[in-house]
Amino acid sequence: MNIPEVFWLVPIASVIALGMAWHFFSAMMKEEEGTSKMIEIAEHVRKGAMAYLKQQYKVVGIVFAVLAVVFALMAYVLKVQNPWVPVAFLTGGLFSGLAGFFGMKTATYASARTANAVQHGLDKGLKIAFRSGAVMGLVVVGLGLLDIAFWFLLLNYIYNGSEMALITITTTMLTFGMGASTQALFARVGGGIYTKAADVGADLVGKVEANIPEDDPRNPATIADNVGDNVGDVAGMGADLYESYCGSILSTAALGATAFAMNGEMQLKAVIAPMIIAAVGIFLSLLGIFLVRTKDGATMKDLLHSLGLGTNIAALLVGAASFAILYLLGLENWLGISFSVVTGLVAGVIIGQATEYYTSHSYKPTQLIAKASETGAATVIIKGLGTGMISTCIPVLTISLAIMLSYLCANGFDMSMNASSISHGLYGIGIAAVGMLSTLGITLATDAYGPIADNAGGNAEMCELGEDVRHRTDALDALGNTTAATGKGFAIGSAALTALALLASYVEEVKIAMVRAVNEGQHFIDAAGNAFNPSTASMPDFMQFFEVTLMNPKVLVGAFIGAMAAFLFCGLTMGAVGRAAQSMVEEVRRQFREITGILEGKATPDYGRCVEISTRSAQREMVFPSLLAIAIPIIVGILLGVAGVLGLLVGGLAAGFTLAVFMANAGGAWDNAKKMVEEGNFGGKGSDSHKATIVGDTVGDPFKDTSGPSLNILIKLMSMVSIVMAGLTVAFL
Amino acid sequence: MNIPEVFWLVPIASVIALGMAWHFFSAMMKEEEGTSKMIEIAEHVRKGAMAYLKQQYKVVGIVFAVLAVVFALMAYVLKVQNPWVPVAFLTGGLFSGLAGFFGMKTATYASARTANAVQHGLDKGLKIAFRSGAVMGLVVVGLGLLDIAFWFLLLNYIYNGSEMALITITTTMLTFGMGASTQALFARVGGGIYTKAADVGADLVGKVEANIPEDDPRNPATIADNVGDNVGDVAGMGADLYESYCGSILSTAALGATAFAMNGEMQLKAVIAPMIIAAVGIFLSLLGIFLVRTKDGATMKDLLHSLGLGTNIAALLVGAASFAILYLLGLENWLGISFSVVTGLVAGVIIGQATEYYTSHSYKPTQLIAKASETGAATVIIKGLGTGMISTCIPVLTISLAIMLSYLCANGFDMSMNASSISHGLYGIGIAAVGMLSTLGITLATDAYGPIADNAGGNAEMCELGEDVRHRTDALDALGNTTAATGKGFAIGSAALTALALLASYVEEVKIAMVRAVNEGQHFIDAAGNAFNPSTASMPDFMQFFEVTLMNPKVLVGAFIGAMAAFLFCGLTMGAVGRAAQSMVEEVRRQFREITGILEGKATPDYGRCVEISTRSAQREMVFPSLLAIAIPIIVGILLGVAGVLGLLVGGLAAGFTLAVFMANAGGAWDNAKKMVEEGNFGGKGSDSHKATIVGDTVGDPFKDTSGPSLNILIKLMSMVSIVMAGLTVAFL
Repeated sequence: MNIPEVFWLVPIASVIALGMAWHFFSAMMKEEEGTSKMIEIAEHVRKGAMAYLKQQYKVVGIVFAVLAVVFALMAYVLKVQNPWVPVAFLTGGLFSGLAGFFGMKTATYASARTANAVQHGLDKGLKIAFRSGAVMGLVVVGLGLLDIAFWFLLLNYIYNGSEMALITITTTMLTFGMGASTQALFARVGGGIYTKAADVGADLVGKVEANIPEDDPRNPATIADNVGDNVGDVAGMGADLYESYCGSILSTAALGATAFAMNGEMQLKAVIAPMIIAAVGIFLSLLGIFLVRTKDGATMKDLLHSLGLGTNIAALLVGAASFAILYLLGLENWLGISFSVVTGLVAGVIIGQATEYYTSHSYKPTQLIAKASETGAATVIIKGLGTGMISTCIPVLTISLAIMLSYLCANGFDMSMNASSISHGLYGIGIAAVGMLSTLGITLATDAYGPIADNAGGNAEMCELGEDVRHRTDALDALGNTTAATGKGFAIGSAALTALALLASYVEEVKIAMVRAVNEGQHFIDAAGNAFNPSTASMPDFMQFFEVTLMNPKVLVGAFIGAMAAFLFCGLTMGAVGRAAQSMVEEVRRQFREITGILEGKATPDYGRCVEISTRSAQREMVFPSLLAIAIPIIVGILLGVAGVLGLLVGGLAAGFTLAVFMANAGGAWDNAKKMVEEGNFGGKGSDSHKATIVGDTVGDPFKDTSGPSLNILIKLMSMVSIVMAGLTVAFL
Repeated sequence: MNIPEVFWLVPIASVIALGMAWHFFSAMMKEEEGTSKMIEIAEHVRKGAMAYLKQQYKVVGIVFAVLAVVFALMAYVLKVQNPWVPVAFLTGGLFSGLAGFFGMKTATYASARTANAVQHGLDKGLKIAFRSGAVMGLVVVGLGLLDIAFWFLLLNYIYNGSEMALITITTTMLTFGMGASTQALFARVGGGIYTKAADVGADLVGKVEANIPEDDPRNPATIADNVGDNVGDVAGMGADLYESYCGSILSTAALGATAFAMNGEMQLKAVIAPMIIAAVGIFLSLLGIFLVRTKDGATMKDLLHSLGLGTNIAALLVGAASFAILYLLGLENWLGISFSVVTGLVAGVIIGQATEYYTSHSYKPTQLIAKASETGAATVIIKGLGTGMISTCIPVLTISLAIMLSYLCANGFDMSMNASSISHGLYGIGIAAVGMLSTLGITLATDAYGPIADNAGGNAEMCELGEDVRHRTDALDALGNTTAATGKGFAIGSAALTALALLASYVEEVKIAMVRAVNEGQHFIDAAGNAFNPSTASMPDFMQFFEVTLMNPKVLVGAFIGAMAAFLFCGLTMGAVGRAAQSMVEEVRRQFREITGILEGKATPDYGRCVEISTRSAQREMVFPSLLAIAIPIIVGILLGVAGVLGLLVGGLAAGFTLAVFMANAGGAWDNAKKMVEEGNFGGKGSDSHKATIVGDTVGDPFKDTSGPSLNILIKLMSMVSIVMAGLTVAFL
């Protein structure tokens, strides 16, 4: 089938994104890095970060090698999988890894330069930090779309003209998301453990026991802490959203191929529509990025406004552009589907606002947590946990509404559950996820900006750059904390919608696997004893064949296990942070004890050793929870079949999403409650209230930066593993 | 239809249970209550508890009046409900309230007597405390079965011979569980808020600020704290399990009526089988109660052994008896169904053991939490939360296995989803719940024993009875802590199975409502445009008619909202405890400040004022979360129909069960980690480690005694409300 010319926007947008990323990177590299001390500190952080990444990619490399062999066996020996999967899997992982590498490299070069630039004005600092963050954003969307365009063109060339070509192509491409998922899992979990082990360790001994300020060069864990911001919040977050980005586009394409299967021309349009929306999103994100600027002496509100301006204009324009794109493309029901895109965009904004409300100390919930510090640490924790739980309400209702509306807009408000209305509706849910993620180029820039500003502050502190510079980096850092919180809400919301789209695609993948099995000579008999032909069966037919009703104990048990998996995964990662932080605490204590003159600033601490400990602990601790996340859907698939897997995915998604929002918001609120006390409320710095809020903040660290965000990966990965292993599940039927 | 003679075991067992409860009560009353000071303190507690109950029953009375009017409207005006429902609803609530009243009255009379008896030996104290606890257990099962027997006989007399008699009877009776549910909701939530507001308030000011020991008579909140143990742990727990007990029997009866609808005789047997198993369970529980005794100088292990002996022998005998009962009854597939009963019993034991493993400081998880206190409160909290999350694994897998096995045993290992295999399988799940709860007479005794021993210790402390008496009450109290933890695991596990049985009954109730609607002239058209006749439709037909597949966005949205409801409900109750505790803290501080000589023991604190504050806060705070729990299923039913409700129930059940286990176990583990430090480990009493574990324990208080247990009610109540409102949902079709 001939691909419409408009498709070329996709590779063009991806190349432009990468080109602009390169442009921002080189512009940043031309800036002065500051004094030799500043350069040295930055060098330490950069080396630590790269050493970590190298070590992590080694472990990930081994896992990839093993999985590639498994997929190769499944594809070439057992013949239960498409032959392209092993290769596609590897490119997905490679591109995700590359994005993390470039993003982090940029971030570690940018921090000293930001600290240096701030001396010449706030706007200059903001620009360097933000555009360096934009490198991450643009690399992610650029590499993501490039991989998608490459495979689409290649597979379209190969399968062109064959029966069911587009369905085969899109479901094959979907499995390359597995590579992105696997790499994201290790990046998020490993990075999350690293950053919080270093942070908690540095705080517990440095701040609490030795009473020295944050980022003090006398603290041996300071460098590790700064490295952690990069590996957790830059590389981890990037990999997470790379996965959501590709996953949402690919699953929507696959859902489109099914929904419009009756009409070849329309089918092709439905498949490329999400890609084109993403491509246009890149152009508009670039526009937004250029809009971000500020003036000197800007207040927090000004700074927030300037970032908000960029992202909101980009979102608004993408919404408007969708109508034009889908109309010009001539997609059936273009109006309704455009509204589905808008639904996703609006849901993203609402979740971001709700996150800000529950985590910023400009609002009551966080203020009350800070006030609870007057009666001690216990009430801070109780209040924070309670607030976090209550804060799940708005995001869940928003996503629920987005699901209903995007479904109904895309299928012409048809609530009857026939094959056509379901498949069009599910396509709508997918395209809502694409809409939400279409401005990722700029939203991810605001996320990645945070750790750069944070590191710039650290650099300024360690090099004792003076009060007014510190003041400006503090302003940039505070801004970063707010954008980090809303960014997390966005990451969770998009993960939920993406996971839902993947869940729908799972049934398609099962169908493909069954058709393949039939071609290999397998026969399927339904409950009534009749032959079941997967080629002609519709979605409701499959549901009936697999007996996926809520009265099937397999579905119920699957749902229980899914909910439990979310809690178990969080418990394991919390435990991992605890143990890793413990090693760090012991090392810092040892250095304070054994290196004489360290606390007087006369001797240099052994930063390298702390970096090494974080790296080693993170690598060791990330393996078990990660393997578990991969193993659970496989085991459930083998034991409980398709019905069990669907129960698992729904249970895991519902509980995991809610749990993730709870943890992220509780963590963010505790962090800002501490900041509020530090600003002089309820006794201010050094008071008992302050100590109580430090306990809250320390508990919140793994909540918001390790376990909570790792759940995003878990809910997507469980769907992704199920999709890739569909062939195996079918073989056990 | 003639009821087999063996049915008379049911009313007989209930009367014997009530008689024995009276016997234990009068035997206890004959004991000496001790010195006038002891009598006075006990009088304070008793008055406070009764004042609370009176106040609570007033609020509950209003809610009942409103709901009864609503049900009357639905039954007599809108005609969307069975005419017996309003009356049955009221008896369910009345009996549950009576059980709480008697149980608590006994507990408050028993505490001083236990303290007094301990002076003459450990065995004497154990016997009084335990048999007084048994009053609660026996009253609950006695009143529960009495209500069931009464309604069964009455309705059978009225409907005898009419078509579908047993299905109508059992589904009508099921709605009387709504009365029990509503009363349980307020008892659990209100009692939970009361007890923890008093406990946290007393600890924060007394222990932490004023440095006086627990239960010290100088602390104005001491009496309120002791009252709290009674209203929360006795009345609240009793109402919770009363609901599970009745709910499991009634829903199993309803499921039996459907499963065996083809054969009238067999149908009657299936309906009465759960009642007879419960009746036999009463006799064997009594046997177990008499087996509980100990010798003086008994170690903790001995005490645990003697309680364990009673419960385990009762469980073992019920398991064995089920085979005999069902064989003699001549129930079809009696062997398989007996195995379903055993499945439930075994699952209960495993969950209890797992709870003990994760919460007792004889095992590693809690020891590691205690050890984390060396690095401060934050690591205690992180470790506790992580452990609680991991601890969900075994209970969830156990319940999952119990679901699968009880389902398959009862339907002859038939995994095909036809109407007959599903309905027989669901009957198996129901009867597993009945099996788990059949020994409630004794298991609830071990629960209710805890607060009595706790209060006895409080009484001894306040009356300064001397070191060795305190030592013995401490031993009884420590035993109570362990049984409380396993009791909580049991309460959650049985709530999950009961909720599942109720979920299955919901579909039956919808069917009845639709048949009624057809009789009133309503017509139903399915998606294909054909007339749908509910009278002849099977369970799979209903699933298809309501389009309850996992690809229906209504089901998915329902599941999201269900999971969120669990978190929201917990967040609200945590917040309620925080606010109520805050009022208590302020009052205690005020008394310390304004009443001169209070800390020197020269002036008596104003205990009554603290009792009043707890009572008022609990009443005020319980209303919103409770109404929300009732409102959510109604709103979802109206907006998203049957498919949405089923999604809601499954999502709420999966997430709620896991969350409840997490909270109960984390709370229990923190409590015992503190005890471990108090026993002299990691620095012992007064050390920084001790302070860190106190923070953990204080956070754990609302976890394990308010929010966690309230979830048991939530998951059952949402099913129950859906069942009662089925008529309304159908009216909106």
